[in-house]
Amino acid sequence: MKKSKKLLEELKKLDFHKMYNEDFLLTWEKSDDEIAATFKVADILRDIRENNISPRLFDSGLAVSLFRDNSTRTRFSYASAANLLGLEVQDLDEGKSQVAHGETVRETANMISFMADVIGIRDDMYIGKGNAYMREVSKAVEQGYKDGILEQRPTLVNLQCDIDHPTQSMSDMLHIINTFGGVENLKGKKIAMSWAYSPSYGKPLSVPQGIIGLMTRFGMEVVLAHPQGYEVMPEVEEVAKKNAKASGGSFKVTNSMAEAFENADIVYPKSWAPFNAMEKRTELYGQGDFDGIKALEKELLAQNAEHKDWECTESLMKTTANGNALYMHCLPADISGVSCKEGEVESSVFDRYRTPLYKEASYKPYIIAAMIVLSKAKDPVAWFEKLTDKTPKRFLA
Amino acid sequence: MKKSKKLLEELKKLDFHKMYNEDFLLTWEKSDDEIAATFKVADILRDIRENNISPRLFDSGLAVSLFRDNSTRTRFSYASAANLLGLEVQDLDEGKSQVAHGETVRETANMISFMADVIGIRDDMYIGKGNAYMREVSKAVEQGYKDGILEQRPTLVNLQCDIDHPTQSMSDMLHIINTFGGVENLKGKKIAMSWAYSPSYGKPLSVPQGIIGLMTRFGMEVVLAHPQGYEVMPEVEEVAKKNAKASGGSFKVTNSMAEAFENADIVYPKSWAPFNAMEKRTELYGQGDFDGIKALEKELLAQNAEHKDWECTESLMKTTANGNALYMHCLPADISGVSCKEGEVESSVFDRYRTPLYKEASYKPYIIAAMIVLSKAKDPVAWFEKLTDKTPKRFLA
Amino acid sequence: MKKSKKLLEELKKLDFHKMYNEDFLLTWEKSDDEIAATFKVADILRDIRENNISPRLFDSGLAVSLFRDNSTRTRFSYASAANLLGLEVQDLDEGKSQVAHGETVRETANMISFMADVIGIRDDMYIGKGNAYMREVSKAVEQGYKDGILEQRPTLVNLQCDIDHPTQSMSDMLHIINTFGGVENLKGKKIAMSWAYSPSYGKPLSVPQGIIGLMTRFGMEVVLAHPQGYEVMPEVEEVAKKNAKASGGSFKVTNSMAEAFENADIVYPKSWAPFNAMEKRTELYGQGDFDGIKALEKELLAQNAEHKDWECTESLMKTTANGNALYMHCLPADISGVSCKEGEVESSVFDRYRTPLYKEASYKPYIIAAMIVLSKAKDPVAWFEKLTDKTPKRFLA
Repeated sequence: MKKSKKLLEELKKLDFHKMYNEDFLLTWEKSDDEIAATFKVADILRDIRENNISPRLFDSGLAVSLFRDNSTRTRFSYASAANLLGLEVQDLDEGKSQVAHGETVRETANMISFMADVIGIRDDMYIGKGNAYMREVSKAVEQGYKDGILEQRPTLVNLQCDIDHPTQSMSDMLHIINTFGGVENLKGKKIAMSWAYSPSYGKPLSVPQGIIGLMTRFGMEVVLAHPQGYEVMPEVEEVAKKNAKASGGSFKVTNSMAEAFENADIVYPKSWAPFNAMEKRTELYGQGDFDGIKALEKELLAQNAEHKDWECTESLMKTTANGNALYMHCLPADISGVSCKEGEVESSVFDRYRTPLYKEASYKPYIIAAMIVLSKAKDPVAWFEKLTDKTPKRFLA
Repeated sequence: MKKSKKLLEELKKLDFHKMYNEDFLLTWEKSDDEIAATFKVADILRDIRENNISPRLFDSGLAVSLFRDNSTRTRFSYASAANLLGLEVQDLDEGKSQVAHGETVRETANMISFMADVIGIRDDMYIGKGNAYMREVSKAVEQGYKDGILEQRPTLVNLQCDIDHPTQSMSDMLHIINTFGGVENLKGKKIAMSWAYSPSYGKPLSVPQGIIGLMTRFGMEVVLAHPQGYEVMPEVEEVAKKNAKASGGSFKVTNSMAEAFENADIVYPKSWAPFNAMEKRTELYGQGDFDGIKALEKELLAQNAEHKDWECTESLMKTTANGNALYMHCLPADISGVSCKEGEVESSVFDRYRTPLYKEASYKPYIIAAMIVLSKAKDPVAWFEKLTDKTPKRFLA
Repeated sequence: MKKSKKLLEELKKLDFHKMYNEDFLLTWEKSDDEIAATFKVADILRDIRENNISPRLFDSGLAVSLFRDNSTRTRFSYASAANLLGLEVQDLDEGKSQVAHGETVRETANMISFMADVIGIRDDMYIGKGNAYMREVSKAVEQGYKDGILEQRPTLVNLQCDIDHPTQSMSDMLHIINTFGGVENLKGKKIAMSWAYSPSYGKPLSVPQGIIGLMTRFGMEVVLAHPQGYEVMPEVEEVAKKNAKASGGSFKVTNSMAEAFENADIVYPKSWAPFNAMEKRTELYGQGDFDGIKALEKELLAQNAEHKDWECTESLMKTTANGNALYMHCLPADISGVSCKEGEVESSVFDRYRTPLYKEASYKPYIIAAMIVLSKAKDPVAWFEKLTDKTPKRFLA
């Protein structure tokens, strides 16, 4: 438990009091101290669980989940985090196609929240919709709490929206921090967030956007690479630029994968759909134009197919720093010759990084749990200190 | 905790010992003391949760749920109640269309109950079926318990059947009691349970029936209003008449919404299907006559459309006592111009009552929890006294 | 608690230390002591729960379930066992038709296991696939644990595969042991595992295989009876022969139901599909030949219909030992004139044995819990002794 004690001392120096009773929707709405506190709490939670202490924060309570898109790993990460803290997941299954509006959102948000402490939402399919929906839910439960309808104010965790994927980017970042031996070692490191070819269509932009919106805060050289036409949301690029400037790092966009990989310390090659196409799709859905959607899909797949050379190959990897940049992915990856004929990454590259990739994913339950702890506990430091003194066991035999 | 202590003193005076190991299927099967005890326990549970005490009654155990019709709010209320008491919800998903009979019911009821403490069932679609099914399940587990197959006798909670919707009517009543400052203030108050127009079809009768079956027990003037042809089950009207007589109140049926609303202290305008039509639909389902069902649906929608003037308007509300009767609804309501073109209630009326409406809904988790506590704990008073002394926390930080 | 104390003394004499951190996939991979220990622990768990002690082994943790075939009773048994021990079930729902391979299995297995203590899998549809899949998952999480990705090694419980159905056969056996007053009374007893007619098709072989693979270990005369063409997997017959020899019992295959029933102490008449047909179906699925599957289905139903005389009738029952052999079934049974026109068993036979049949099923939650306890607790004896001293209650009022 020495590790936890050290982390706790570091946590004490950070100012995170504004996280109390607040949602976690976009990393760039959180201060540097708040981001750092989230990493510390995630590491503490991991350490105490590894030492068989149960960080149960609730004796009862619901963690509502609402997945408007498929999910396995985030679903399990959310369930794990909730369970670790003593909450029970209750899924709100509205059917994926049904997009609730106005009155309905307000009402449903309250109806499911009488005993809810957290609400986790994935809503990443439609540009301009997902994050907006989360804010509608947040406003509704805030009002319900003020009006005395809800006894507690459930806080929201963004499990992926159209703009950001904070539980992913934060897990990725914690993986980087722990791989490089501390955030202090990241200054000047080069990270390439690169588009890569995939035979599938319409992957959300929230991963590349989340990465450039977060990784620019640590003094790194962040390069976003993609073919022309695969631009991300301009607002997020603005965030990245501002972050880079403030942190003493840099943010650059290029249309060359080779340029991005050259001398990179970290590479993150991953497919996504063009922002404009996703906007168009959102419109078509709004109009119920399913023929239009089919046509768009065909068009996009053809457009993707023009960029099959955007693959993370062994030869590209050789051009990275010492030929062994840290390869990252949010998983599942489209592995050439394994999960598809031609894909995002050569299979020998993927194979070599399998253990670090799985480790990268393993941070997500702790990141989510940390977000919950920091929004629910007024004084998490005091709680952790009490915990480690009493040592309630997770495994009781 | 003063509030709880006072409620506990009141609870002690009531005779509810017959609720132990019993189901909660119809409110009119419970004595006045038992109904009163349920309200007291619900209020106690709410108060102690608000004071951060965990009323965990079980260290483990299942709360089986079986929803043969869609549900969001009752599903979440049941899950919240179970979780609050330490039970885990396990859903039995048989597919909505499959109606099990005889042997199968007996067997399944036992197979799911080895570690079940409660079984909550919603089965409200077919007249003559839902409540009967619950009784079949109840008999099966009773027998299983007697035969030594089950180590405990899971008790049933009716989460809405063809006859009654006790968790709804009890929540509604508790809302009324708390709004009017106590059951002693309700004598002579007028409540209008009125049909209202909706463009949808086949809404269950269990809400109006539950309301007239329960609200007639408190000395109120209960008026049931509906267009000709929208009669409820005659047996339930008989219950209402008998209750009214015993409680010193009155029960009246009228075909005029205006008459019902005039000088009313409470109004509950809500759509439902005619009893005869629901009976016919049940028959058609039994015969597998889907064309017949479609024809019936068309016919019923046309019949509804003749009564679009049955809307809870501002001008109708002005005719109520002091022009500000308490407006109630089980939600979701069909709000004119919001959730449909023409509906049950004018949007400005609904808007004005949103907070009380949500509050009304907020009682349901506690009502369900109270039903569970009173059927599982032999001496709930002793348990509550022990609880409040030890103050086990719900939120542990 | 005298019963538990006695069982605990018996448990101490058994060598089960190799079960720690191991899966439970096939009964014949476990030693006699390990099988005996599982029965003892199941009986202890039942006794202490009946005495209102909570055998909570975990303060938090997930019990992942993956059902690649429908299930009600095993699903509820698994949920009950997990809940009893303090684990929360999290279902991995991949869609029944999707058969994951290689890379995907390895990755998914790790992604769902960060906080998983147990993984329960049902995968019984395709010969040569189900058990193989479980071993793939097991290898993946073993590797993940070694690589430091997983903090604990989730152990697997086979909830039915193509080869064995250990949670069923072990529950059945515990029912036999308790019915006959101890394993020592079983030497020389005759048990008939017999095919029986059913109008349905493609029932898995894992039940008869599980029964002959396990019941041959106790010195009993085990007879497997089926019409020609309904052979089970030859490997499992080999296991049965070897077991019988070692235990001083016998194993015999016959094509006569009458011969099997004659003087039997226990009968287990149940339908299953021919092994060859199941192999062919697996191939056809692999080829996506759905017309072929339909044709095969028709052919198999016709083949079944030639053996309608394979029914457990009253007159057959009269030929058993004292005319009252213990009738067993994994449920649900195809009862002639009740669940189908002609089926596995005459309704009066089934009726007479209903209570013992339900009791037989009631062991499954405890058998599953025992499997989990023995694979997770390094020293279950010490844990049980600690438990019974502290007596933490399951029901707290």
